[in-house]
Amino acid sequence: MPKLDLDSIEQTNRTSYPAPFAAATAGRHLRRLAPAAGLTDFGVSHVVLEPGGMSSQRHWHEGEDEFIVLIEGEAILVQDEGETVMRAGDCAAFPKGVPNGHHLINRSARPCIFLAVGKPAQSGCHYSDIDLHFDAPGGKFTRKDGSFY
Amino acid sequence: MPKLDLDSIEQTNRTSYPAPFAAATAGRHLRRLAPAAGLTDFGVSHVVLEPGGMSSQRHWHEGEDEFIVLIEGEAILVQDEGETVMRAGDCAAFPKGVPNGHHLINRSARPCIFLAVGKPAQSGCHYSDIDLHFDAPGGKFTRKDGSFY
Repeated sequence: MPKLDLDSIEQTNRTSYPAPFAAATAGRHLRRLAPAAGLTDFGVSHVVLEPGGMSSQRHWHEGEDEFIVLIEGEAILVQDEGETVMRAGDCAAFPKGVPNGHHLINRSARPCIFLAVGKPAQSGCHYSDIDLHFDAPGGKFTRKDGSFY
Repeated sequence: MPKLDLDSIEQTNRTSYPAPFAAATAGRHLRRLAPAAGLTDFGVSHVVLEPGGMSSQRHWHEGEDEFIVLIEGEAILVQDEGETVMRAGDCAAFPKGVPNGHHLINRSARPCIFLAVGKPAQSGCHYSDIDLHFDAPGGKFTRKDGSFY
């Protein structure tokens, strides 16, 4: 049936961030819905953020649009301009190439759930707050000077 | 700010369905979030369905994936196999080319809200229950024999 049985889809808190940046997303539990459902036009991540959790390091993509919708609970959207509270039903969009790093953090006392829609990274990803850069295609993390961790 | 002010985005219950199929979606109030937010990689529709409303005529796409998530309230997902209740946080996916027509109807006593993610139609759309077909590119509705309404 097209309705997804979320419990049957693997949930992971793995990250490909190098140390010391990997620990920040330990409270992020992610399911990749598109491959589980046979979709290829776009990706959909179902994410549970524990209290204190972070969706990702704050970043922006050169070549991929992103869209998020809060499903349950409350999260803080952090961008260059500051912070915005996101609650169930709130949506945010991050057009490709706009150099405004963003991420969600959960400062509430209970888990929150959101969906993120995007496409696989085919372009550079810039990290606003830390000495990290992602090159794509090629798929490697480096320092901003290009050296490897 | 990337958080979307939904109230500032035009909401419409227009449809391009020909009579007599247009009346069925009168209770569907839709906002196209992607163009409002500057996204081009995929589309996101924010839909409020009134009690008795229908998301669309039951259909499937030859060449475009679709994904929906219920945000608020309750809707019935109808497919060839039958009916499934969808509640806040429930997700469903419709891979391109799978000939299983789907739509949502609201049989509850209050409005429901869902998001639908997809891409602009570039391929045929098949309607399961009615004598309607959509040809794309070209963008025209016909009867299943190819004749126009």
